[in-house]
Amino acid sequence: METELSRELGIEHAIFGFTPFPAVAAAISRAGGFGVLGAVRYTDPQELARDLDRLDKLADGRPYGLDVVMPARKVEGVSEADVEAMIPDAHRGFVQELLARHGVPELPEGEASGWRITGWMEEVARRQLDVAFEYPIKLLANALGSPPADVVERAHDHGVRVAALAGSAEHACRHAAAGIDIVVAQGYEAGGHTGEIGSMVLVPEVVDAVAPLPVLAAGGIGSGEQIAAGLALGAQGVWLGSLWLTTEEADLHSPALTRKLLAAGSGDTVRSRALTGKPARQLRTAWTDAWDDPAGPGTLPMPLQGLLVADAVSRIQKYEVGALLGTPVGQIVGRMTSERSVQAVVDDLTRGFERAVTRINRIAGRSAP
Amino acid sequence: METELSRELGIEHAIFGFTPFPAVAAAISRAGGFGVLGAVRYTDPQELARDLDRLDKLADGRPYGLDVVMPARKVEGVSEADVEAMIPDAHRGFVQELLARHGVPELPEGEASGWRITGWMEEVARRQLDVAFEYPIKLLANALGSPPADVVERAHDHGVRVAALAGSAEHACRHAAAGIDIVVAQGYEAGGHTGEIGSMVLVPEVVDAVAPLPVLAAGGIGSGEQIAAGLALGAQGVWLGSLWLTTEEADLHSPALTRKLLAAGSGDTVRSRALTGKPARQLRTAWTDAWDDPAGPGTLPMPLQGLLVADAVSRIQKYEVGALLGTPVGQIVGRMTSERSVQAVVDDLTRGFERAVTRINRIAGRSAP
Repeated sequence: METELSRELGIEHAIFGFTPFPAVAAAISRAGGFGVLGAVRYTDPQELARDLDRLDKLADGRPYGLDVVMPARKVEGVSEADVEAMIPDAHRGFVQELLARHGVPELPEGEASGWRITGWMEEVARRQLDVAFEYPIKLLANALGSPPADVVERAHDHGVRVAALAGSAEHACRHAAAGIDIVVAQGYEAGGHTGEIGSMVLVPEVVDAVAPLPVLAAGGIGSGEQIAAGLALGAQGVWLGSLWLTTEEADLHSPALTRKLLAAGSGDTVRSRALTGKPARQLRTAWTDAWDDPAGPGTLPMPLQGLLVADAVSRIQKYEVGALLGTPVGQIVGRMTSERSVQAVVDDLTRGFERAVTRINRIAGRSAP
Repeated sequence: METELSRELGIEHAIFGFTPFPAVAAAISRAGGFGVLGAVRYTDPQELARDLDRLDKLADGRPYGLDVVMPARKVEGVSEADVEAMIPDAHRGFVQELLARHGVPELPEGEASGWRITGWMEEVARRQLDVAFEYPIKLLANALGSPPADVVERAHDHGVRVAALAGSAEHACRHAAAGIDIVVAQGYEAGGHTGEIGSMVLVPEVVDAVAPLPVLAAGGIGSGEQIAAGLALGAQGVWLGSLWLTTEEADLHSPALTRKLLAAGSGDTVRSRALTGKPARQLRTAWTDAWDDPAGPGTLPMPLQGLLVADAVSRIQKYEVGALLGTPVGQIVGRMTSERSVQAVVDDLTRGFERAVTRINRIAGRSAP
């Protein structure tokens, strides 16, 4: 499975795997794909350095990348405390009431929330970059908007390609104008922040809009047949995130959550603002239902919602409160039915891809080459 | 582009085209695909007979089919008047106010609404079937639920294959249990009534769920590359509806609507209950916005909403009231940018398919056969 982009990056399969777990990212790269570590959860640059050390060691010299969340527009002089102060009391009350109704225990005294999405703050993201450029990363992906011009320049100076996620062709064109190298066209089916255009329509639109820039197909891809479909749509590779969540190398810190993922069908996710204030696909739970209920207070805009719910999400995860327990994940969750090693998953993907190519050749009346 | 199903049906390309226009259906069949005439708008069996005469003559001996809307569960002894009586006055007032605000003229005295979706009523659909079985149709598709057992039997007695649309694997399994022959897996991207699972995820799920029944991929398909993707996902053919709306053979009776379709992008549709009471993808307009507005009265359940809005839709279409003028159409509308003949569209689809197959072979490292 070789495209111009995969050749340039020196990888065997044009499969890009996004994951918050260094061991998973490394295993993807070792299996011939390209592991991309999600950095949004690292508020402490030392923690990121520790995990990049681990990734670099485990990757065995294979290329890998980092995914940050960096807004193109700065909000000057706004601290986390300033943002916290903007959260209405009624919303705080709603969170407390919801947690109480489900009997969610408090965190032990002195234990801070482990789930904070302050990585979205430019200041935090820039500290992450200072760390990242110390490592031989080959790709820097930005999950929200185009990265600032100086970051693109800095990446290019380090020989690092820059990728950005897009949910529409217009969005992709703005990225191209910002000088990025790769567009990840992420369809409606995807986990996490996602737009309303399905992958089947979005991918070729983005390919046409930003040609000759390479495009990765994301959203709804979890089998070799789906990889073949993404590549048939003109992509130079695929970008998979959800599929790795139930691999043996992943560490969700919650057997209950893993069980929920393994049991969920493709109809068990929802595109909700409950987690971050922007629409993000995730497991549908009593938590998302409460926030999406027209009778409730509704969600706050990003970044307020993320700060508002950080402690609550940590408590729900720590105590594995079933009805509220969720995670960002795509519609492909229906295909995640067993815990397997990353290598087994990649083997399955490449075999399925070969099967799909053989089948499509038969349909096209081309004898097996 | 040949699959087991296309061979059995004796067609050159595994491209199924759904359309309300007999001339379009015939042109699709003549071009080597399989034209399917949508029957929902025919309240008068004589009109359907007239259009089937026309289709049969124009199809030049090539196979074609009919698409009806037939509920599996009967509502005994309920007439259209009974249903009309269930519509609240407040909703009628909302329609009148909305039309007045946009200056939509009344229909001339004595002119009945041409837009009535009473085809959903079993009584009407059964009269359509009495007509249809007089013609050499090769496929009977049901757009809403599984067809009743006696209809499946009657079709099979006539040597007619039965297809049904499904938006989820569960839905598809119910169809399979009802004895149908072909499942149309219709993704979120599709125009008209559609579910929430994107085609990329839905198609292979349905293929696995109903194997060995053949599956057609629907939703988001409007290019040869997208056909290749649908077939890579395991489908035995593709089902396209929106793409034909702007062909030269189509007769929308509204140059303004055609212009709107040609100008619309993939982000200009919405999945709304405004037209029928069930979520159906259509152009986003001031009409859908008004019904989807939480401050409004909201839509009524099917079939009340369809009856409530029938006259209004006819008036909006007749007088081409721009802000309100819409139609069911999928996200693929962004690709519909010129009026072309059906033959030119099919040529473009088959060329694009061949291109995609060549590209995927190159990626798979298989030399061009």
